[in-house]
Amino acid sequence: MPTVISSVAERFARLGIDAAPGQESAARADIQRLEGLRRGDDLAGVPVDFSHGDVNAFAPIPSAIEHFNAGVTEGAHQAYTTYKGRAEILNELAGKLGEFTGTPVDPASELIITPGTQGALFLAVASCIDFGGRVAIVDPDYFANRKIVEFFDATPVYVTLNYQDTSRSAALDLTGLEAAFADGVKLFLFSNPNNPTGVVYTQSDIASIAELANRYEATVIVDQLYSRLLFTGTEYTHLRSTGIDPNRVITTLGPSKTESLSGYRLGAAFGAPELIQRMERLQAIVSLRAAGYNQAALNSWFSEPEGWMQDRTAAHQRIRDGLVTAFTAAGMHVRTTEAGSYVYPQLPELEIPVSDFVTLLRLQAGVIVTPGTEFTPNEDRRVRLNFSQEPEAALAAGQRIIKLAQRYAAK
Amino acid sequence: MPTVISSVAERFARLGIDAAPGQESAARADIQRLEGLRRGDDLAGVPVDFSHGDVNAFAPIPSAIEHFNAGVTEGAHQAYTTYKGRAEILNELAGKLGEFTGTPVDPASELIITPGTQGALFLAVASCIDFGGRVAIVDPDYFANRKIVEFFDATPVYVTLNYQDTSRSAALDLTGLEAAFADGVKLFLFSNPNNPTGVVYTQSDIASIAELANRYEATVIVDQLYSRLLFTGTEYTHLRSTGIDPNRVITTLGPSKTESLSGYRLGAAFGAPELIQRMERLQAIVSLRAAGYNQAALNSWFSEPEGWMQDRTAAHQRIRDGLVTAFTAAGMHVRTTEAGSYVYPQLPELEIPVSDFVTLLRLQAGVIVTPGTEFTPNEDRRVRLNFSQEPEAALAAGQRIIKLAQRYAAK
Repeated sequence: MPTVISSVAERFARLGIDAAPGQESAARADIQRLEGLRRGDDLAGVPVDFSHGDVNAFAPIPSAIEHFNAGVTEGAHQAYTTYKGRAEILNELAGKLGEFTGTPVDPASELIITPGTQGALFLAVASCIDFGGRVAIVDPDYFANRKIVEFFDATPVYVTLNYQDTSRSAALDLTGLEAAFADGVKLFLFSNPNNPTGVVYTQSDIASIAELANRYEATVIVDQLYSRLLFTGTEYTHLRSTGIDPNRVITTLGPSKTESLSGYRLGAAFGAPELIQRMERLQAIVSLRAAGYNQAALNSWFSEPEGWMQDRTAAHQRIRDGLVTAFTAAGMHVRTTEAGSYVYPQLPELEIPVSDFVTLLRLQAGVIVTPGTEFTPNEDRRVRLNFSQEPEAALAAGQRIIKLAQRYAAK
Repeated sequence: MPTVISSVAERFARLGIDAAPGQESAARADIQRLEGLRRGDDLAGVPVDFSHGDVNAFAPIPSAIEHFNAGVTEGAHQAYTTYKGRAEILNELAGKLGEFTGTPVDPASELIITPGTQGALFLAVASCIDFGGRVAIVDPDYFANRKIVEFFDATPVYVTLNYQDTSRSAALDLTGLEAAFADGVKLFLFSNPNNPTGVVYTQSDIASIAELANRYEATVIVDQLYSRLLFTGTEYTHLRSTGIDPNRVITTLGPSKTESLSGYRLGAAFGAPELIQRMERLQAIVSLRAAGYNQAALNSWFSEPEGWMQDRTAAHQRIRDGLVTAFTAAGMHVRTTEAGSYVYPQLPELEIPVSDFVTLLRLQAGVIVTPGTEFTPNEDRRVRLNFSQEPEAALAAGQRIIKLAQRYAAK
């Protein structure tokens, strides 16, 4: 198959961000037309931005700022680190990540600190991808997966995650993944817990992914960003500890979400030494390094105060339960989040496009959600909510979503 | 000409970093072999790492840390910004950059905040480059220019900067640049002040670059990282204020060097709205945004205490004068730095490769410099020194470079 390469203009035409989380205030929506679609009075309440978590409601790990300030005071050694990160911090972090995932991490060859988990994901994919090639990604999954693949002029090969049947575990279409590998696809990229559905892959599915990767000599990048925020009854399997060839897997993780350190832009990738070395080479020209002083804040990660993670998890579980109960009672299909802070409810059939509804929800009800079309190439009536919010405000905003959806529901 | 695209393995094989600034401690040099090449006793003295500036010798803008901490205290609004950066900070920064460069900057469409000036440079090139295409870059110039071009499988077309004749202004080979444009090259990338030579382009050369870009409908990315640190007698011309089509130019700048904020990883790109929009789309998948809290530190930039920049500039000029005098006295050719904190002296002909000398200099004299081969595709005996260092230590280390070079000089 000949490699067909797009011009830079063609590539960027594909790379939209107007509906992306956090960009709503900049969206060039056709506000005047939408004003004409308003139905009924505005729905009053505390504004809630479900596109990302609220670090005022769930504050960063307390000692992060102290580590940062100590780094500034220390000066040169913390400001300028090698591209992978400061050796002392890599050493400590490797120990923690090895313990967390159940398989040791060599700080000298298997770990890189990045500007956010997004930075880790971009470098990881860029280190494995052939321009104009093909990459297997999950439908639905984190919106950037598809965009990174397309930026490199590669074609996504979709593998379905079956999550709609809430009576059973979600399941990856392993036949589809094998077919992609058998057809020559050499890279598979997925998030676990899945973003946006909150699904955790079964041990059996993770074992099968490992087995297929080994058999077809494919590389797997697994984004485990939410793997610490596990709700009651959820069992989590780390792909890197399943017998997958250690030279075929990169795991990404970071303290931006559960631990609320997003404002520091810190992440990590660990695994296959050759790929970590490529990522280091690439980081040298992409951003040099994660901000030096910020790296010091990583010392707070996996070293939270006693009980801090348990309290945080329980608080999120209560918000999840409130929202899932409310959406279910309103007849909106939703799966109970197994890990992480996303719910992905399905709106009723509407008389207007979901994209218009999402903007009207912001204008009429002060509620920002992310449309499902960011996560799947298919038509979808779902919206994603990051429920890491002030609990009362989140539940009240959930009610406003339901009310407004009812106003626009197809009769 | 058909586009030939390399495999990912081929691309990364080209992307070396072992000799890059800041990576010396990680370099996999053949230490044992080099130990056998030692000549004479070690040269004692305070170790100096000339690969980058010393933020302990020249501290960050004093208020930067206060702005950062205020950002953390403010919380959510500073942690999560749009991908381009927080609107309030873009507004203030646009005013300062417009005033500094002599042409207004629209904060809504012409400015993006990035993780370091390196981040700005990567996004700018990535937003203009065709995979497998050609890009005009200067010989010599900042090492990442070539590496970014090659990462995208593009071919550098070198345009020579004639800087060796110290009796006259340095001059770009405009005939070469025009030939490249006439041959279909659509992108030109250069640093002004030039890194590594410390040359500032003449007004005439900058005007010619603008005229050629307009005539051949080419885009120019100009890295002005050091354009605030101008020594006595230097006149600086901002390309964006020369009549170049504003849709054809992107300027990058940041507070990492002169202002010593490197540990915060902050930079900016400003200019052509369509390209800034592409950069925003790309930043969304590369690193999301410059770290939110860190962005607050930008409020200190161009708002330094009264006299702070003047003192800093004068202090650097004294170190420059000391080093240039010493190298010249030792018969090492060097051009007097016009702006920025680099000198680029030429070593005598040596009996060993320059790459070995650079490692021996670190082992025997505690001095780290960056070999000229990072900046030019040609053989070169030059080494780059960032002289933003504690003054006495820098001058003593300069003497150790001279002494060790004399030990290895060809007879």
